[in-house]
Amino acid sequence: MEHLLSPEHRAFRDELRSFVEREIPKNVARAAEAAGPDYPLHLFDKLARAGYHATAVPTEYGGHGADMLTQLIQARELARSLAGMVWIWGMTSFAGANSIGLYGTEAQKREFLPRIARGDMRVTIGFTEPGGGTDVLGAMTTTAQKVSGGWVVNGVKKWCTSAHVSDRILLLARTDKDVQRKSDGVTLFLLDPKSEGVSLEALSPLGMRGLGTFLMELRDVFVPDDMVVGEPGRAWRMLLPTLTNERVLVLGTCTGILDGVLEDALAYVSTREAFGRRLGDLQAVQHHVANIAIAQYQTELIAYEAARRADAGEDTFMAVTMGKIIASEHAAAGADLGIQVMGGQGYSTETDMQRYWRDARLMRFSPVNNEMARNLVAERLGLARSF
Amino acid sequence: MEHLLSPEHRAFRDELRSFVEREIPKNVARAAEAAGPDYPLHLFDKLARAGYHATAVPTEYGGHGADMLTQLIQARELARSLAGMVWIWGMTSFAGANSIGLYGTEAQKREFLPRIARGDMRVTIGFTEPGGGTDVLGAMTTTAQKVSGGWVVNGVKKWCTSAHVSDRILLLARTDKDVQRKSDGVTLFLLDPKSEGVSLEALSPLGMRGLGTFLMELRDVFVPDDMVVGEPGRAWRMLLPTLTNERVLVLGTCTGILDGVLEDALAYVSTREAFGRRLGDLQAVQHHVANIAIAQYQTELIAYEAARRADAGEDTFMAVTMGKIIASEHAAAGADLGIQVMGGQGYSTETDMQRYWRDARLMRFSPVNNEMARNLVAERLGLARSF
Amino acid sequence: MEHLLSPEHRAFRDELRSFVEREIPKNVARAAEAAGPDYPLHLFDKLARAGYHATAVPTEYGGHGADMLTQLIQARELARSLAGMVWIWGMTSFAGANSIGLYGTEAQKREFLPRIARGDMRVTIGFTEPGGGTDVLGAMTTTAQKVSGGWVVNGVKKWCTSAHVSDRILLLARTDKDVQRKSDGVTLFLLDPKSEGVSLEALSPLGMRGLGTFLMELRDVFVPDDMVVGEPGRAWRMLLPTLTNERVLVLGTCTGILDGVLEDALAYVSTREAFGRRLGDLQAVQHHVANIAIAQYQTELIAYEAARRADAGEDTFMAVTMGKIIASEHAAAGADLGIQVMGGQGYSTETDMQRYWRDARLMRFSPVNNEMARNLVAERLGLARSF
Amino acid sequence: MEHLLSPEHRAFRDELRSFVEREIPKNVARAAEAAGPDYPLHLFDKLARAGYHATAVPTEYGGHGADMLTQLIQARELARSLAGMVWIWGMTSFAGANSIGLYGTEAQKREFLPRIARGDMRVTIGFTEPGGGTDVLGAMTTTAQKVSGGWVVNGVKKWCTSAHVSDRILLLARTDKDVQRKSDGVTLFLLDPKSEGVSLEALSPLGMRGLGTFLMELRDVFVPDDMVVGEPGRAWRMLLPTLTNERVLVLGTCTGILDGVLEDALAYVSTREAFGRRLGDLQAVQHHVANIAIAQYQTELIAYEAARRADAGEDTFMAVTMGKIIASEHAAAGADLGIQVMGGQGYSTETDMQRYWRDARLMRFSPVNNEMARNLVAERLGLARSF
Repeated sequence: MEHLLSPEHRAFRDELRSFVEREIPKNVARAAEAAGPDYPLHLFDKLARAGYHATAVPTEYGGHGADMLTQLIQARELARSLAGMVWIWGMTSFAGANSIGLYGTEAQKREFLPRIARGDMRVTIGFTEPGGGTDVLGAMTTTAQKVSGGWVVNGVKKWCTSAHVSDRILLLARTDKDVQRKSDGVTLFLLDPKSEGVSLEALSPLGMRGLGTFLMELRDVFVPDDMVVGEPGRAWRMLLPTLTNERVLVLGTCTGILDGVLEDALAYVSTREAFGRRLGDLQAVQHHVANIAIAQYQTELIAYEAARRADAGEDTFMAVTMGKIIASEHAAAGADLGIQVMGGQGYSTETDMQRYWRDARLMRFSPVNNEMARNLVAERLGLARSF
Repeated sequence: MEHLLSPEHRAFRDELRSFVEREIPKNVARAAEAAGPDYPLHLFDKLARAGYHATAVPTEYGGHGADMLTQLIQARELARSLAGMVWIWGMTSFAGANSIGLYGTEAQKREFLPRIARGDMRVTIGFTEPGGGTDVLGAMTTTAQKVSGGWVVNGVKKWCTSAHVSDRILLLARTDKDVQRKSDGVTLFLLDPKSEGVSLEALSPLGMRGLGTFLMELRDVFVPDDMVVGEPGRAWRMLLPTLTNERVLVLGTCTGILDGVLEDALAYVSTREAFGRRLGDLQAVQHHVANIAIAQYQTELIAYEAARRADAGEDTFMAVTMGKIIASEHAAAGADLGIQVMGGQGYSTETDMQRYWRDARLMRFSPVNNEMARNLVAERLGLARSF
Repeated sequence: MEHLLSPEHRAFRDELRSFVEREIPKNVARAAEAAGPDYPLHLFDKLARAGYHATAVPTEYGGHGADMLTQLIQARELARSLAGMVWIWGMTSFAGANSIGLYGTEAQKREFLPRIARGDMRVTIGFTEPGGGTDVLGAMTTTAQKVSGGWVVNGVKKWCTSAHVSDRILLLARTDKDVQRKSDGVTLFLLDPKSEGVSLEALSPLGMRGLGTFLMELRDVFVPDDMVVGEPGRAWRMLLPTLTNERVLVLGTCTGILDGVLEDALAYVSTREAFGRRLGDLQAVQHHVANIAIAQYQTELIAYEAARRADAGEDTFMAVTMGKIIASEHAAAGADLGIQVMGGQGYSTETDMQRYWRDARLMRFSPVNNEMARNLVAERLGLARSF
Repeated sequence: MEHLLSPEHRAFRDELRSFVEREIPKNVARAAEAAGPDYPLHLFDKLARAGYHATAVPTEYGGHGADMLTQLIQARELARSLAGMVWIWGMTSFAGANSIGLYGTEAQKREFLPRIARGDMRVTIGFTEPGGGTDVLGAMTTTAQKVSGGWVVNGVKKWCTSAHVSDRILLLARTDKDVQRKSDGVTLFLLDPKSEGVSLEALSPLGMRGLGTFLMELRDVFVPDDMVVGEPGRAWRMLLPTLTNERVLVLGTCTGILDGVLEDALAYVSTREAFGRRLGDLQAVQHHVANIAIAQYQTELIAYEAARRADAGEDTFMAVTMGKIIASEHAAAGADLGIQVMGGQGYSTETDMQRYWRDARLMRFSPVNNEMARNLVAERLGLARSF
């Protein structure tokens, strides 16, 4: 998709690729992931020093104000090595830089955006609850009640990525129960997880283990008024660009994972011997590798088209919704083939293939599961809501 | 992929779409296909009157000199209604306009290109032989022997589409057996199928029945010197752009088939009732329809990227080779889902779905089978030749 | 599955196999199918002379009273050559021999079963209507009104296989609208299609073309009282064993189709040459062939288990419902691979592969579509009705 | 497959099922797996006390002398809870009880079989080497040289499951290089891993982590003559029944995994709420669950047929080779669907689904990869060796 890239995009990509190969090669990424919930602050700081946390932050607040295509490139290049650990940057970028940048107050922007750009701050999200992942609104019982000078929040949030090292959590809570539609009456807050009444319990997902993810209990947690993001009660309507941003980063992640899968699979079959020749001489193995390349090519096209539409101000609904389905399924299928050609080696935690495989698997149901995404595609095509 | 299209491309597409809806709607296309080998000359002539045979012919020879993107659009818009019958235009375009335009002599260009542009002439190919489809060179026994003033050709060719109504056949024959590589020593001829010694026997494929396809026997057929195309003995090296052109038309055909599949499937499930509601209200049916849309979207991206690369003079090998695999598999899978949602109706020759299904199936092994295409992709990735 | 077969079963199978190879080899079957709606009476008569119409008829009415396993074997051995044309026997067997044998009156049994056993009579079904295939009851508008001495039937039935050469049609009609459940108030009749008021219009499905299938209009058609089958108003409850019988024949048909696919694919790749060796030497081709064998093996196991359960008087719901899904999907996938390895040859109507492919495709949505079958499996597993 | 089971088989299964639910429920199994290489001796001992290590040991040596069907049942019932950890029993059973029972000397049988039956001993295998998994013979560099009173072994073995807690390793080593076929000149030994010169290095596979698996280096390790198993130099020919035994246990494991997947998926979707109803009310979710049930049903049929053939003394080659492909692919696909319906819960190490998913994945390339198995199937069908 070189034709979509300006010389600046290409330069950005080439520098970033060098940086990753030098500073965060796969073995470093692998160790960081395997270390479990002990968040790799050293990697976060490396990205900070190189300025990569500034990418999506508007220029007027110390960032690079990069377009979606640049963010896609960043997700891809990082994911090629880091796989799902790409969210070490991406989480703060879409939940922080994007959200605050789009609907934060001027004061919030001044307070947080420069810190994000410098790599002095981490933001994560608190949307999902134990009662339901896909049906966020239906399962939501977290409430924020207005009190003098702020709000008192009660509830439980699940899958709060890196909450233990985050400075703020973009929290979704119901502030008005007396609404006709569930999508009304919900509000976003920038919650400090070190506030009184917040407790975190480590969860144990199969992938992206180095980031840590948490169940967060909120008991009478006070959030001051100036930490409300956007208009109270209208959070759901505001969130669309943030979710679109997240989807584009997912597309980049899937593309990057496939980059990694393809290069590792190729390297393996090009050197491994079997039956007196290279493993990669066997036609069945070649077809697996070709299918990985085909998956990567399609994912790349899908990803760049989504970013392009976003940057052009075009409607991105189908591009990111279908794109997310396609990219996650290609990434999962590609990594699965990668394991198959590498056999025991690919299944060993000493290599990266099993890491790509675990991380890609997650993308098929997160941040939205592909069945729900298909429902939404069908609805967009004019069919009735089926859920 | 609107962003790739210039205003001229869009205008071309919109006019063509109106033309097709007015002049070659699906029921007309369906009847033409069902009529079997009685080639639909009236459709060919309709295209002629509207100037669509001129698309790929260079302007200096009376054509529109359109780029690959325009040709892709034409294949797509025609295929949406005609499905595989798109070759009523495409065969002459790549085997005639493209080939003669690229490596014909000036005299050949003057003689044939204006006729092609006007729709006064049809060209088809004679490459494959009964002994083998994928291994064209290995299976080839057709020879052309130099005699005074021309060549004498003997052999048998298979799957010569529309040969019974073609004015010239782009014939591949061995002119030199004393070569080190099979790809040397083969030559292209523009054979007149009405020449003495040519006999045609109708074959019976499952799809594109209206075009007719033939086994062609050649017994001491004389071809004059001026009907040699390009340099004798070097045909295989010249053919690449012609084959690339063919692949791009295949990509357009697959995209167009998926356009047709999607619109027919949607129309059916939006009106058909079952269990007291619309069929399209059922989630399993919605997912099938969403999957058709996803297949179409990917195929469209693949197709436009290939045409774009061709027009930009970039390397198109992977774009058309992987693209052909992807597009044909998506088209076949999409049409299969189309039958599944339509049930008995989709399987009935009174609807178009079964036609899309049959035609898309062909694309998975023709013009090159997808296994061979995967071998070639693997080879391009650096692995050894496996066949 | 030899262990399930008694010596009598094996002898039956071996004789039938010889009969098919001698009397109905594939080229004969292919010609019969290609001949379109001109039902192959000569093949029906061949089966009659050899006694194969008697298989499922109880011994006391001149039949062989064979168990379900024997019927499965018969469907399989016939389908290996005839593919979907197996219904030349099977339709009369399940709609006639089974239904009349199970819930016909003694007089009906005496009148019809000996004729069926001798091959003097053909029976087909009239269940489906234009308004809906899967939702038979919901779409049914055909009514039968009680009059003196009989009933007057009005309505339209669709997909009446071989109705033009059938002596009786097992017709489902509503006889009571004042019921709480749609499954009550429907009655079965043995309608003579030559009755006044019956008109047939040929339909044109993509497969099993030789059998012919029809839209049947019924205008004030009189059916005498003695042609009611079973208790009026309770047809739906009675039909289960008939539908189970049909499903087992579908399983046999799918197994037989896969037998044919495997032997044709193997024969082709064992002799066809490509790139200086046999096509079947190529690993990718070998894997396709292995996958056909794997599909056939699974289908065989599924089919025999269903018949075994039926004969043992065990619950067959899951065995025939899951079995039908599995068998039809394996048969369709197997035939699809068969085309892929044979390329243009497999797609040519001069070979049987394309016939297997078309016929197997039908089984995925008929007699019940696989989506509905999956709904029913889920319901049996304890989940709520989803349609 | 109840009809294949004698009353004794059923009683055995029912008792074992109760035992597992009482003594090794899923949470116990999950904890044992998560504990990493610290082999769960307490579970091994539980099986010992209940007599389950005696299953495959001949009666004359203190065992139950159970047939293959019983062993299949044991693998299945254990795997339903333990998943891949089933090898806590199975490894010693096929590598020890089966191998020594079949080709051990009388002295070896007397020494080892009673200990195995009592659960006083563990055996594992040392076949694979770092240079190659599928091509065991081609990659093998481990040699055993004859010396007075025994043999001196040098080499490296990989993926030695539970070697750290094993009493003997069934080791394959080359004892004669001067042979025409690689399959000649290899010998089996019962190596004590506590011998001098043996060193173990823990490997880190993605699944079955509780068993531990090791790289084993052998430097001048002395193995006494009486620890040779079977005839020196002819190991490869003897091994077939051992490998068949292993395959049957794999089939049982895959069936048991699918039992676990189905029950966990059903339980989840039957209780989890989304959009105001049970998750399992959604049709797309129902189809996933139905597909798991369909996978389980096919795997069960395949597995029992293989065991039945083995017990009947029939040729089992295709039953275990195709069976292994089918079972592992169904298990992997089923567990993948299980994760998809459970979403984040299924991906969490607090549930068993992710464990089934990891373990099932291993079966697709181990003990033989499915590509190689497909090659072997094709060869059995009469095609040439392709590797």
